[in-house]
Amino acid sequence: MQKNIPFSKETIQSIIAKYPTPFHIYDERAMIENAKNLQKAFSWNTGFKEFFAVKATPNPYLVKLFSKIGFGADCSSHAELVLSEKTGVVGENIMFTSNNTAAYEYQKARELGAIINLDDISHIAFLEEVAGIPDIISFRYNPGELKSGNDIIGNPEEAKYGLTEAQIFEAYKIMKDKGVTRFGIHTMVASNELNSQYFIETADIMFSLMIKLNKQLGITFEFVNLGGGVGIPYKPEQNAVDIEYISKGIQKKYTEILVQNNLAPVKLYLELGRYITGPYAYLITQVQHFKDTYRKYVGVDASMANLMRPGMYGAYHHITVLGKENAPATHIYDVTGSLCENNDKFAIQRALPEIEKHDILAIHDTGAHGHAMGFNYNGKLQSAELLLRTDGSVKCIRRAETLDDYFATLDFDGLSSF
Amino acid sequence: MQKNIPFSKETIQSIIAKYPTPFHIYDERAMIENAKNLQKAFSWNTGFKEFFAVKATPNPYLVKLFSKIGFGADCSSHAELVLSEKTGVVGENIMFTSNNTAAYEYQKARELGAIINLDDISHIAFLEEVAGIPDIISFRYNPGELKSGNDIIGNPEEAKYGLTEAQIFEAYKIMKDKGVTRFGIHTMVASNELNSQYFIETADIMFSLMIKLNKQLGITFEFVNLGGGVGIPYKPEQNAVDIEYISKGIQKKYTEILVQNNLAPVKLYLELGRYITGPYAYLITQVQHFKDTYRKYVGVDASMANLMRPGMYGAYHHITVLGKENAPATHIYDVTGSLCENNDKFAIQRALPEIEKHDILAIHDTGAHGHAMGFNYNGKLQSAELLLRTDGSVKCIRRAETLDDYFATLDFDGLSSF
Repeated sequence: MQKNIPFSKETIQSIIAKYPTPFHIYDERAMIENAKNLQKAFSWNTGFKEFFAVKATPNPYLVKLFSKIGFGADCSSHAELVLSEKTGVVGENIMFTSNNTAAYEYQKARELGAIINLDDISHIAFLEEVAGIPDIISFRYNPGELKSGNDIIGNPEEAKYGLTEAQIFEAYKIMKDKGVTRFGIHTMVASNELNSQYFIETADIMFSLMIKLNKQLGITFEFVNLGGGVGIPYKPEQNAVDIEYISKGIQKKYTEILVQNNLAPVKLYLELGRYITGPYAYLITQVQHFKDTYRKYVGVDASMANLMRPGMYGAYHHITVLGKENAPATHIYDVTGSLCENNDKFAIQRALPEIEKHDILAIHDTGAHGHAMGFNYNGKLQSAELLLRTDGSVKCIRRAETLDDYFATLDFDGLSSF
Repeated sequence: MQKNIPFSKETIQSIIAKYPTPFHIYDERAMIENAKNLQKAFSWNTGFKEFFAVKATPNPYLVKLFSKIGFGADCSSHAELVLSEKTGVVGENIMFTSNNTAAYEYQKARELGAIINLDDISHIAFLEEVAGIPDIISFRYNPGELKSGNDIIGNPEEAKYGLTEAQIFEAYKIMKDKGVTRFGIHTMVASNELNSQYFIETADIMFSLMIKLNKQLGITFEFVNLGGGVGIPYKPEQNAVDIEYISKGIQKKYTEILVQNNLAPVKLYLELGRYITGPYAYLITQVQHFKDTYRKYVGVDASMANLMRPGMYGAYHHITVLGKENAPATHIYDVTGSLCENNDKFAIQRALPEIEKHDILAIHDTGAHGHAMGFNYNGKLQSAELLLRTDGSVKCIRRAETLDDYFATLDFDGLSSF
C-alpha cells in the first residue's frame, strides 16, 4: 500500500538544489485544512480552542501559523514559554501543562499570564511561594484504574502525571478557599491513540467528575481540557481517527452530563500535537550507499539524529521512493542512517521498489516528535525545517545546524593551557 | 548494595554554589588510573594502542587528557574528526571507523591522515573516487553466525556493520592490487559486554582470519583492531571485567596463532569508549518535588535530556543520595525528570534511603553515552560537564546550554513578515 505525497520528485529536486538533504518539509496547505476541519468539527462548542502542543514541533513559524487560525500554545517548559512569547502568543493563549516544574518556569508562566495547569497537589503551595496564585487555575487529573492507557504513555496508575480523585477534590477546595474564582480541569491519558471511542470515554469521565466537584465544592468550570493523544495512521493500512465522530460523541456526553446538570456552557480545550502536524511533514533524504552482506542495506544521508522514533520505539514510518510511487515493492531492504548504533534504521526488512543511487526518499509522518526529538549523537548535525507554502514557494523556517553550533558550548581556546 | 563515590556531599555542595545542577562531573584521577591499568595490562604487545571512542564522550578536554597518556581517537563522523583535529590529535592517532560514510567525511579523514577503516566493500571504489586510496587501509569484519552478539548491538547477521568473510578476502585483494602495502583489520561485535571470554574468542576469530588472509593473499597486518564493547558494571552486584584476564587470554591466542604462524609482531588496537569514561562520571541533580499518587515520586532537576539510557533502553543507573551513603534503603520511589514523557524516569520502583527536599542525588556511570546522547526535547537545555581534577580543583570542560543556544537555528526576526 502506498501513502500519498503532496509533491513530485521534480519539485523536491528543485528544493534540494537550494537546501541540501536531509531536511524536514512541512505541507502548509494540508496543515491549515486539517486545523480548520478540527475547528469545524468542534464548532458546536462556543469557546472551543486547540492549544497546539509546542513540544511536538517547537518551531515559531508553525506556532504563528496556527495562532492565526485561532490556536493557542500548549507549553511544557520554560524554553517553550519563551518561544511562544517571542512568537506573540501570550496570556491565556498559553496553557502551561508541565510536571516536576521548576520555580523559574512558574514565574515565567505567571509573567506571561498563561493558564497554569498543575500536575500535583503539592504544587499549590510551591506555586504560591514562588510565583503567587493566579485568578484561574486548572489541575491535571489522573484517573488511575478507571482508564487503561496505552503503550507509549503507560497505564495511568504507573504514569507520573496528575492528581488522584481524592487529591483533586482537596486541591480545588484549597484553591477555592484561597479565593480563586475561575477554574479549569485537564487530563491526558493516552498518546498516539487511534480508537475514537477512547476520547469519548475520557470526556464522559471528566464531565462526570466535574459534576461531582460542582456538587461537593460549589465550583463551576470555565473550561475542560481533554488533552491530546489523538493518533495518526503511520501505517498505510491504518485509518485516521474520525474527528467528527469524536466531536459528536463528546457533544452527546456534554449534553447528557454538563447541560443536563446545568453546568454548561463550558469551553472545550484540546492540546493536540501529533494530530496537528504529524502527517504533514516528510524527512527528505538521499540514498548514498548500498550494502549487500547478510541483508541488503540502503544507506541514506539522514540518521536517527533527524528522526528518533524508529530507533527509539521501533516505530513504523512509511517510505516513498520519489518517482517510483507506483512501482511494485519487489525488494527487501534495511534503510539505515550512518550512526554507530545498530538501531539507526528507518526501516527493517521493508518491501520497497528497487532503489538506485541518488534516489530520493520521503519518510512520512515526521511532522511531530521528529525534528523535535533530534540529538547530536556521533556528532550529527540537526537538519533544516522547510515550509512548503500554499502558493508553492518554499520558506526555510529553521536553518540546518553547523559545526559552530555543535561546538558552541566548548572552549577550544582553553585547551592550550590544559 | 552501594557503589562508591569519589566525593563528599560537602564537596558537591561547594561546586553547586558555582555551577547550578544538573551537571555531569568526571573524576580525572580514576580515569587516568583506569587508562594506565589498561595500558599496563596490554604492555606485552609492542605498539598496543587504545583509540578512545569519541562518540562516547565527545569532549576535547577528555580527548586531550587521554592523548597525553598515549591514546588515539576513534572517530565516527566528520564532526568528531574536526573535534580531534582541534584537540591536536591527528594523523594515525585517529582511527576513522564509520558506516554509510559521506564523501566529505572521507575527504576530511584523508586530509588529517587518519587510518581509514572501511565498513563495506563498495566503499573501496567510493573512497578512491572521492578522496583517493591511502597507504594504509583497514576493513571491518562482520563474523555473521560465527558470533552471537548481544542485546544492544544485535546479532552480527542482523547488524549493518562490516564485511562478510567472502567479501573481506576480495576487499584486501582489490587493495593489494591497487598498491596498498600497509594493512590493518577490525571488528566490533558487542556493546557493553561483561563476559571476558567473549573478547578472547573474538581475538581467536580475528587472528585465525588474519592467517587465512596472509596465506591466500600474501599480505601481512600492521595492526588488528579488536574494537570496543567492553562493558561496565552498572548494577552494584555486577562485577567489572578483568582486563588483565582478557589481555592474558588474547596474548595466549596471539602466541598460539600469530606468533606460531610467523605473523607477529602485530600491533593490537582497541577502541573502547564506555570502559574508559563510563564509570567515572556522575550526573548530579537536586530534588525539587515529591509526589504521592498511585506511587511515590521524587522529581529532580535533571531529565532524560541529560541522560537518555534509562528512558531509551530501560537501563539501570545506580543512584546515591549524597550524605546518606550508608542509610538503609527503606523507601521505594520512581525518580523522575520533568519531560512530558512517561519514560523520563531515572529509576522505577527503586529502594533508596528516605529522600528530603534539596537532597542531592549522584546518578552513577554517566561518563559514556550520557551527555553525548542528550537532546533538547521539550525545550530542555543540555547541562555542563565538569572535571574534578586530581588536585581537587574543578574545571568546567563544557558550559551549560543557554536559551540562545537552543534558539540559534531560528530566525525570530523573520516572523514579523510571516
